[in-house]
Amino acid sequence: MAATKVNLSLDALFDLMTAALMASGANRENAEATAEVMRNADRDGCHSHGIFRAPGYCAALKAKGLNGHAAPTVIDVAPGIVRVNADNGGAPLAVKVGRPALIAKARSQGIAALAIGDAAHFAALWPDTEPLAEAGLVAMSFVNSRAFVAPAGGQSRVFGTNPMSFAVPRKGRPPMVWDQASSAAARGEIMIAARDGHSVPEGWGLGPDGEATTDPATILKGVQLPFGGYKGGAIAMMVEVLSACMTGGDTSLEAEANYPGHGGPSPGGHLILAMDPARFGQDRFLDRIERLFETMLADEGVRLPGDRRLANRARTPKDGVDVPQALYEQVKAIAEA
Amino acid sequence: MAATKVNLSLDALFDLMTAALMASGANRENAEATAEVMRNADRDGCHSHGIFRAPGYCAALKAKGLNGHAAPTVIDVAPGIVRVNADNGGAPLAVKVGRPALIAKARSQGIAALAIGDAAHFAALWPDTEPLAEAGLVAMSFVNSRAFVAPAGGQSRVFGTNPMSFAVPRKGRPPMVWDQASSAAARGEIMIAARDGHSVPEGWGLGPDGEATTDPATILKGVQLPFGGYKGGAIAMMVEVLSACMTGGDTSLEAEANYPGHGGPSPGGHLILAMDPARFGQDRFLDRIERLFETMLADEGVRLPGDRRLANRARTPKDGVDVPQALYEQVKAIAEA
Repeated sequence: MAATKVNLSLDALFDLMTAALMASGANRENAEATAEVMRNADRDGCHSHGIFRAPGYCAALKAKGLNGHAAPTVIDVAPGIVRVNADNGGAPLAVKVGRPALIAKARSQGIAALAIGDAAHFAALWPDTEPLAEAGLVAMSFVNSRAFVAPAGGQSRVFGTNPMSFAVPRKGRPPMVWDQASSAAARGEIMIAARDGHSVPEGWGLGPDGEATTDPATILKGVQLPFGGYKGGAIAMMVEVLSACMTGGDTSLEAEANYPGHGGPSPGGHLILAMDPARFGQDRFLDRIERLFETMLADEGVRLPGDRRLANRARTPKDGVDVPQALYEQVKAIAEA
Repeated sequence: MAATKVNLSLDALFDLMTAALMASGANRENAEATAEVMRNADRDGCHSHGIFRAPGYCAALKAKGLNGHAAPTVIDVAPGIVRVNADNGGAPLAVKVGRPALIAKARSQGIAALAIGDAAHFAALWPDTEPLAEAGLVAMSFVNSRAFVAPAGGQSRVFGTNPMSFAVPRKGRPPMVWDQASSAAARGEIMIAARDGHSVPEGWGLGPDGEATTDPATILKGVQLPFGGYKGGAIAMMVEVLSACMTGGDTSLEAEANYPGHGGPSPGGHLILAMDPARFGQDRFLDRIERLFETMLADEGVRLPGDRRLANRARTPKDGVDVPQALYEQVKAIAEA
């Protein structure tokens, strides 16, 4: 039997999550910034980063692992670098507060970076890069997490699932944005397979004994693997260096060691880069991007990353979002406590 | 029977390649910049980018597909961007000429980019990023090539093998540098398997009929695949956008269409980014990098990218480099023609 669902409008979803975050100790500004990112994830069909994450954010707020009254400050550290001191709050507010300065610097310098070392990033990365591409910039984003993933060839936890995102502005259309973990699978996918009693593909992880396994519960006790062998392992390491070591944020191992176990996100490091094609002298940039994408799409089997998200985005303002009944009840109970 | 080899000192190798390039039409400055990069590849055991490439460079020079008298000029296009107009010469000279300005900009702005749209990149990428990390900067490099690789899910040639490189300075040691194609395999590996009559692993490519195959000759007529499925395909697309569309260089498809078939490199796009950890306020950067690498290496199966290169680099100044006899004769004949 399929789980019962509750259909919520995007506004109702936003209000419910804002209320739950505020009931857990966040002020309105912090709550709304986080609820907006979660609502946009559900709007776009990325349910693993939508209301699904609300109980975790609320747990972290209640355990004081996340500062719900964070007052992030923007610091101009160099002509090409803006830093946000995030006050141990959630990344959504820190990124929102730092974005105007990042855009301004990218436009004046040609390339600029936003560095955040003390914000809890529990969300998808595309909400960080997409607004930059909407402003005409090419953007990259890198974030680490607690340690779950082995380096290529290894069997111990060193890296987070370490996602990166890349966004490109398009002519008369929403930006092309991708956002992917450098682990073979998202941790949530393995958790869902364990819950449902399914095995997972080879290459997703090792057991605590260092042996390859397709049993998700054994992988959760052991270690995840990078995607694509040693090349994905190199990407995972790059993301670790850029997100943690360039910002002063905890490495994934430090985040794991400092984690109080409340079930929510930990403060960590986060780097966003933005480049202005116009300042690179590329007046034909948008036309060349369209031609590149046209040639890709001429091949039947190919679709552009993010296309499914955009299709959902066109649909959900009218259709609303189906939320599992139990999850809905859980968040409602937090909001009404 | 193993092929006969000729042992050359690093100096003899450099002189031989410089002479071959000059006999093919390059002036000393252009010839030496290219010979230096090839010698350093052989010095470090990266033979696929060493003297192995010399006949291709010479063929391109003779066919006027590569300007051997290129006079690259450095243009300050924005506070964070330096552009090199490479005059359709080789990338080694263009990068060498642009590097001081890139380093200066990274140190003054915190982050900077070097954009080159009209240089022929036939070499490894680590020689582009390693000197930046030796100067204390974190560096990334992206370059495209002629179209050989399908997008994820596709079966037609759109991307080059599109390598990227990442380099990190270290405390009291040479930088950590990686350099990897976004295709599952280097084209040279597939060519060597075809020559030697070996099959290649599944996932390296498709035949002209779009069917998966392990026959290298069929893949060479068909299309290569990205590493790591759709995630590697996303990396390949990012490299294409950054290297070609951000610099005005040919896309891989344009480079293929414009290629006169001389067997050497084509002019294309190339982007290098450099960031200064000190300007990011990261005074403990080098110590944190060492701690990260220590935890990686505590896992027996793990080695750092580039370690084999550094071991060869310590050995070859004394031992010299073994060059296949036929290749040696070929380059010598070019030099003496």
